[in-house]
Order: sequence, then structure tokens, then C-alpha cells
Amino acid sequence: MPTIKNKSIITKTKLFKVEKLDIEFENKVHREYEVISGTGYGAVMVMPILNDEFYFIKEYAAAVDDYSLTFPKGKIDEGELILDAANRELQEEIGFKSTMLKHIYTLDLAPGYIDHKTYIILAEGLSPSKLPGDEPEELIIEKCAKQNLSSFLNENKNIDSRALAALYIYKYGLNNVK
Amino acid sequence: MPTIKNKSIITKTKLFKVEKLDIEFENKVHREYEVISGTGYGAVMVMPILNDEFYFIKEYAAAVDDYSLTFPKGKIDEGELILDAANRELQEEIGFKSTMLKHIYTLDLAPGYIDHKTYIILAEGLSPSKLPGDEPEELIIEKCAKQNLSSFLNENKNIDSRALAALYIYKYGLNNVK
Repeated sequence: MPTIKNKSIITKTKLFKVEKLDIEFENKVHREYEVISGTGYGAVMVMPILNDEFYFIKEYAAAVDDYSLTFPKGKIDEGELILDAANRELQEEIGFKSTMLKHIYTLDLAPGYIDHKTYIILAEGLSPSKLPGDEPEELIIEKCAKQNLSSFLNENKNIDSRALAALYIYKYGLNNVK
Repeated sequence: MPTIKNKSIITKTKLFKVEKLDIEFENKVHREYEVISGTGYGAVMVMPILNDEFYFIKEYAAAVDDYSLTFPKGKIDEGELILDAANRELQEEIGFKSTMLKHIYTLDLAPGYIDHKTYIILAEGLSPSKLPGDEPEELIIEKCAKQNLSSFLNENKNIDSRALAALYIYKYGLNNVK
């Protein structure tokens, strides 16, 4: 395994921390890396399924200045359990709560340069329940039957890579939460 | 559409830029966002297929301080064409060149807070050809037959979310490069 010889914080903003790492590889080669980490507790992404339909949301995505298609998701609050965060986001973003939440995968966004975990949660057993959210405007909810996903996804742009990864994880039964 | 009322750079490092955006939504609600963008020209991720096998790489991922499974990938150099970058990375990282490269998708990593595009390139028509890379140590190449992907992926940890997204894109014929 490579060894972290030195680690220093270059800068820290409200949401992000950028660090510089000096890494020594087993062959004694040294390399400097810049890596980002969030300043919070990670995020949940919830895949809600009801009557063989997936529930997606469309929301304004500031980094690309356009609307983006994704699953209900959000930051985990301090001290909050992963599944509680998932059920809260579900109620805030699509107006459902779930009695069958399952954490199936912990996803690494881009492990080479971002230390950010997204917990992928499958949500079945849905029933209406609304909590007030902190969204600046009403989210658009889009449903899609499982068998129509390909054409639905081809019609949408700015899809969050994690939503596509989550669909692969679901479809092929991947599970890294043993 | 929401309007960007103000945009300022909070900090800039060698690799990253963090900006603060003041967004006004159509309902006149204002919200501040912090977003990250890379300082380069985006990245390619290449899916090499030979004899019904995918070629993956395992490389040290500094942000999680562990080895990560992903596809051959790397930054696009200034002035470099996307497919040229893909063919260069292929030769540097797995020792093959391709005569059948196809840009099938432009992937958004996490459009809510990172403006980073990864160009997903399918690479067939492979033949041996090696270029020297800039890796600090030899990359580990892992092949997997298409029909064994689920068990292979379940045995690996720290998988780049973009590799899972790319597999979904490939499997379901998604294409946002018209």
C-alpha cells in the first residue's frame, strides 16, 4: 500500500475542504495529490419504487445551471441515521414515507479525487406522507415504469451519474453492505 | 429558469475552483450555492471490450487512500480531441489502441455541486500498443467477461461511480451524443 507522508489543508469553504497529500508508493516514487472532501456526513440517494415505477425528481442543479434528473437525495444531518435521512428526504421531496428501506450500496463518487460517500437506499412499501423541505422551489416528480427506463433516460439530460450507477446496482443486485 | 444574479470565485487551487453563486428562482426566492469545477478540459473514461471481456484498471485512489476499480480514464489535455485522449489513455493504461472508438455519453458527475464532465467512450477493435504513462506505479489490469460482471463487481470495493454508470449506459444503449 502507498503511504501518506504528509497531509495539509489547502483551503476550506462552507461545504468543501481541499487537501494536499504527499504520497509515497511502494516503489518509493512520490506524488502530490489534491483531493476534495465534503465537510458533512455524506449523502443518501433513495430509489423509490411503487407499482413497478421508479420515482425520480428534477431539480435545478447550480453547477451546470440547468435542471437535472436524479433520485430523491440529500445530506445526512449530524447524528442522523442513514435510513432516517432517507425517509426524511423521501417525505420532503416526493411526499412518501417507506416501511421497507434497505441500504444496498455505499457509492464512491470519484475516489481518485473526491472523498464523498453516497448511501444508496432502496425504498419500497411507500405511502403518502409529506414533510416540509428546504427546497427553494417545488421539485418536479417524474415517474417511470421499469420497462420504459431506457427511452425515459434518453429523453432527459444532465442526469446525475449516481442515479445511473444506482440503477445498475439495483438491476444487477450489487450489494457492498454486508 | 432560475437566474444567476451573482457569481464569485471563493478559492482556486491547482486542480479545483470553488465558486459562490447567488441564484434567484422564478418565485423570487434567493439561494446561495457553493459549486466546484475542475480547472481543466474534462476527462475521458474508456470502456475497452475485447473478445466479450471488459478491461478494468485498479489504481491507488488518493481521496479514499485505497485501491479503486475503474475503467481507463484521464484528463483531456489542452487542445486534445476527446477520441485522441481516449486512445492515448488506452495505450498508457492498458497497452492497447483502438480503431473503433465511439463517444456514447457525456456524464455529469454530480450536477448539483460539481461541474465536471466525463466523456464515456466505447473502445472496440483493440490491438496491442503501449505508450508511456505518468502513473506513479504500474496499474493493475483486470479483465471480466460480460456474463460475470455482477459477481466480479461484488468482489471489488471502492468502485468509481462513473464506471457503474458507464456500464448501465452501455447495457441499455443510452446515448446523449446525437
